[in-house]
Order: sequence, then structure tokens, then C-alpha cells
Amino acid sequence: MKTSLGAKTLASPTPTWIVGAYDPTGKATGATIAWGGICSSKPPSIAISLRSATYTHGCVKATKAFSVNIPAQNQAALADYFGLASGRDVDKFAAAGLTAEKCELVNAPSISEFPLVIECELLHVIELGLHTQFVGEIKDVKAAPGILDAEGKIDIEKMGTVIYAPGSRLYYGLGPSLGAGFSIGNAYVKK
Amino acid sequence: MKTSLGAKTLASPTPTWIVGAYDPTGKATGATIAWGGICSSKPPSIAISLRSATYTHGCVKATKAFSVNIPAQNQAALADYFGLASGRDVDKFAAAGLTAEKCELVNAPSISEFPLVIECELLHVIELGLHTQFVGEIKDVKAAPGILDAEGKIDIEKMGTVIYAPGSRLYYGLGPSLGAGFSIGNAYVKK
Repeated sequence: MKTSLGAKTLASPTPTWIVGAYDPTGKATGATIAWGGICSSKPPSIAISLRSATYTHGCVKATKAFSVNIPAQNQAALADYFGLASGRDVDKFAAAGLTAEKCELVNAPSISEFPLVIECELLHVIELGLHTQFVGEIKDVKAAPGILDAEGKIDIEKMGTVIYAPGSRLYYGLGPSLGAGFSIGNAYVKK
Repeated sequence: MKTSLGAKTLASPTPTWIVGAYDPTGKATGATIAWGGICSSKPPSIAISLRSATYTHGCVKATKAFSVNIPAQNQAALADYFGLASGRDVDKFAAAGLTAEKCELVNAPSISEFPLVIECELLHVIELGLHTQFVGEIKDVKAAPGILDAEGKIDIEKMGTVIYAPGSRLYYGLGPSLGAGFSIGNAYVKK
């Protein structure tokens, strides 16, 4: 018998990503989000949600582009910082000692020091109440050489990941491998 | 200098959840998804994406309700199985030895053996190409007593989590605590 916890945004895992965008003056800014995820395979798309009160919200709407910057496991504090400050008041990149680098294919800044960057062109703006969901078409994914394996593919164990736990508000890293997808479930397939 | 990996659905972490729904005959079915995430705090909402080819897609559309069933770390193979079989051909619950239990507040089945269940009422259907995004309003979250702490809140360390890595198609569990949200970033706030 389960216990009711109420109508709350509790789920696991939720990500810790920094959404990057340019403000009207061309200054790079960004916001930390935990509400988001891949949302379609074709066109490859990612959804991120921002409150309209955030500075980044208006920037994404105006520039119709954003980046999703994925921290390595040892960059959780940097990611957390982007959720504490507002781009209205400070240059978050400067304060965090991070480098804003223009994305190659879209009009948004990326974080040079983060190992994985998704360059997105705004496809849909969906008002969902407190949050606006921005769906971006993934135009390219760029990875630091240090997180790639010998075949040039992402080795997630080399970067780790940052998980946000909404209830306890704690961050967690990547745990042990649990096996291969589209494989370990075969144990339950009737022969 | 980063390497371009192309326009691919690569991000981390992405979840491993089973979306539960009733088919037109009242049989419980479900589909494993990695494309999804919380999408608004008010009303509390969660987005999950399904290809229209899946059996569960039509079931969610018809019943206007679904559950999000979150496996414990030791249930990755069960979650994987729901992505291998089709509810058109088999009773996935029976094959996996899982119990379908009607949600208390919505017309969808939940998985009794999974520690965390989100009961959702369908709010929006958004066509995004290969995938349809279903946005559900979270009506309740139900948790197994074994994953709660002394205060009745979710202790994620007691359940672990299942992360899917899209590139390598491997599953991973929960890693070490990296610190507190809205806190560890204070190191970068200028005094």
C-alpha cells in the first residue's frame, strides 16, 4: 500500500542543465533548469521549461534560439549558481568564471567549460501555467574530446552526470552501470 | 574545441519510466520512455513522449489519463522489458510478473511493485513529429513506504534511480550525493 504525497512535481531522475541565450544587448546569460527532457526523435527535439519571471525566458523568446549546456559531474556547483543569480543583475558567466562561446549553428551562447552542448532553434512555445515550455530543434550536439570514447561517441562515465532530486533538493552523480537497453528486458520475453 | 556529433537526441540524464494506460478493453498496458520530464510547477505537470506506432499512444489518447511508474534501481530489467514488447501482442504485466493496480484518482493502471507512481490527467496533446508529447497534470504522487524517510518524504537513496544513456543505450543507477541545490552555487555569489 503506497502513501499519497499529494499533487507535487516529484520524479526521478530530473536533469540539471543550463539553458543559454543572448539578451537584447547581446550579453550571454543562462538559467538552470530541472524541468526538461528530450521530446521527439524526428526532428530531434528537446523541451525545457522556464518561468516567465526569469531573464532567460524573454531572451529565448526574442532570439528564438537557445543552448542546453550539460555539466560534468564535478560542475554541479557551477550549475547551481546559474539558478541562484539573475541575469538582470549580474553577468553570470563572469561571476562563475565561465566562457560564453557563440554556438556554431544557432544564435545562442554556449558554455565552453561544459563538456556537452546542444544547439537549439526554437520550434514551439507552449504555455503551461507557471512555466513556459520551449521546444527546440536540436541542430547539433557538441562534445568535449575528453568525454568521447575511441570511436568518437559519448562515454557518459567520463563526464558523469548531475541529477537533481526535486523533493530533497539534493544533487546526485552517475551511479553504476545497470546493463544494456533493449537487452536486459529480454529475460521476460516468452520464448 | 568541441567535436560536432550531429543533430542527435543526446542528453544526460534521461529517465527510464513506464507510462501506464488502459486499452479499449480495459486491459492494463504500458510503454517504457526515456523522452520526458517535469514541465510545469503550477499546475504540477509532466510531459512524456510516445510514438504513434506504440499501443500505449492510442490508449492515452482515448482514456485521457496515464500513470508514470518510476522503477527502483534494481528494476531496470523490468523497465527495459516494457520497451521490448508490444501491448498489442502480449499482456506485459502478466509476462513481467507485475501487478496492475487502478490509480486512485485517474483512469489508468499503475505498477504495484514500482516504488513511485505519478497519477496524471491528460492536459495537452502536442504533435512533435515522430513523437506525440502528452502533458499530464499530476493529480497525486504515490510512494512505497520503503522509500520514505522518517518525515515521510522521498529518500531517493533508498530507491535509487534508473538513468538511460541515449548514445550508448546503457542504463545507470544513482551516484554519490553532490551537495544541496540552491546552496552549493553560493560559492560564486559575489558578497
